[in-house]
Amino acid sequence: MYFVFLRAVLVRAIGVDIGGTKISAALVDRSGNMDGQLTVPTDPVGVIDQVVELVNKLSDGESVCAVGVAVASFLNYSRDFVYNSPNLGLENIPIRNLLQNRIKFPVFIENDANAAAWAEWRFAPRSVEIVNSQDLFMITVGTGVGGAAILDGKILKGGFGIASEPGHIVLVPDGIPCGCGKRGCSEQYASGTALLRYVKSNMPDFPFGRNPSDVIGELVAKSDPVVLSAVSQVADNVGRTAAAVTAILDPELFVIGGGVSKIGTFFIDSIRESYKEYLPHSESRPCANFRLAHFYNTAGIIGAADLARSSLAT
Amino acid sequence: MYFVFLRAVLVRAIGVDIGGTKISAALVDRSGNMDGQLTVPTDPVGVIDQVVELVNKLSDGESVCAVGVAVASFLNYSRDFVYNSPNLGLENIPIRNLLQNRIKFPVFIENDANAAAWAEWRFAPRSVEIVNSQDLFMITVGTGVGGAAILDGKILKGGFGIASEPGHIVLVPDGIPCGCGKRGCSEQYASGTALLRYVKSNMPDFPFGRNPSDVIGELVAKSDPVVLSAVSQVADNVGRTAAAVTAILDPELFVIGGGVSKIGTFFIDSIRESYKEYLPHSESRPCANFRLAHFYNTAGIIGAADLARSSLAT
Repeated sequence: MYFVFLRAVLVRAIGVDIGGTKISAALVDRSGNMDGQLTVPTDPVGVIDQVVELVNKLSDGESVCAVGVAVASFLNYSRDFVYNSPNLGLENIPIRNLLQNRIKFPVFIENDANAAAWAEWRFAPRSVEIVNSQDLFMITVGTGVGGAAILDGKILKGGFGIASEPGHIVLVPDGIPCGCGKRGCSEQYASGTALLRYVKSNMPDFPFGRNPSDVIGELVAKSDPVVLSAVSQVADNVGRTAAAVTAILDPELFVIGGGVSKIGTFFIDSIRESYKEYLPHSESRPCANFRLAHFYNTAGIIGAADLARSSLAT
Repeated sequence: MYFVFLRAVLVRAIGVDIGGTKISAALVDRSGNMDGQLTVPTDPVGVIDQVVELVNKLSDGESVCAVGVAVASFLNYSRDFVYNSPNLGLENIPIRNLLQNRIKFPVFIENDANAAAWAEWRFAPRSVEIVNSQDLFMITVGTGVGGAAILDGKILKGGFGIASEPGHIVLVPDGIPCGCGKRGCSEQYASGTALLRYVKSNMPDFPFGRNPSDVIGELVAKSDPVVLSAVSQVADNVGRTAAAVTAILDPELFVIGGGVSKIGTFFIDSIRESYKEYLPHSESRPCANFRLAHFYNTAGIIGAADLARSSLAT
């Protein structure tokens, strides 16, 4: 036991982030510093093989205490089973066993947004923004809208393992059909996908050949009115989503991450304004703080590795 | 310390429930059994005096370990200050000090729905309905819509003290104005007030002279089609509210309380059906259980007393 504890303190963990387009992995020390990052494009029919191969490469000649895997999917409560993962083609698979059978280090699985929030909670510079509680809520605005809650310094898992899915709060009754089978979910109005839809519908000459994120980033930098208006619209919907989260969790701090958060100050300021507008009883209650995520692409790797390391000590 | 512990085990606590129309109080033992209940109509300008008087009467010649007060209001994180209480006319008052200065037993304050959920959690007969976690979410359907979450066996307070207000999730954008200053809140569509509105709008001969709850209860018992349709409509909105709660907290169990829950099986079955319809990814995830509250009018008293007793041991 003492030896396990020493390893968890001194030795690096491997963090792996399985996303819809790529899988990234790296060695992570106990202060959250990353080293040796490797990235491969996701092969939907070979995800397990890909993770094993990345772990083998990173652990070659290296002492490793554990492997943490962040995966964009609905996981069960005990974190060994994937219910559903629309973007990865994984459904009803015992992911932890499949990996543990082929990896010699202890394997730990977590939802990707939860892992990212954990990295923010553990390693982002802390200001006075959390006073009373140890609570934060992260909203990731990317292709979809994800989320994670840290309550009392722990990830909120929910009774069935699927808590913190703000992208599936309904903003528009009978609205746009969502991948979850319902209609009008926040994900359809507060995501990067929605941003692109808003921009394209008002910009007939949008350059379709290029990476849309790059194009939008350039247009924001130029203060293009069509793009700024679309960003405001998405921010308004993120603010409404955050107000609904507040009605249930009332966090002191929202951390906004995901690809769209790269837009920066204009985006977060617009979210904050919209939030105030939709907050119930806004006249007689304190208002939550909002900040941009500190980590970006690497949050899942760092968070998963640290969670794997922490799990050794319990 | 040992003496305090012994008192907390052996001696009864007083529970007080401050509601908009009446204040009730009783002695409560450590198994949740109530004794000597007293009730007075709420005097909006004399609430503190009324509570002190009830405590004095109940503690006369009685050993009491603590006083727990459930209050229908937004409380701060440290539970000593009322931000706002629309139905009681209390606003920005240091409620704990005002009571503690005049009561010789330790005084403990909690939101009324939280206290009720605590009573359900601690003393309602438990089935196998909670398997993984120690989580439940209570929705109280009365004049308004309240709520409370028990997570890992603790009341969820939120970073600012105001978590679990499902009545202020927006169901209808730009809908009916709400007391919270916003529009379209669940409270306007999923409450007893909404039920009465739905019934009256379809029943020109509704008897206005009598207690509306009694009238509705009788009409439900007679399977009156207009009233059943209105109950279904409210249940549908409670189900939508619960689906939004699930997107954030994913509880294993919903407990439905409040005056409207007295309608019973038809109401809870309708809520369950509606919930399934609105649950995101309903095809590939477990479905929460729903049950009616075990306690009714007395849950606030029992829960507040037990929380006060528990606070002595910490």
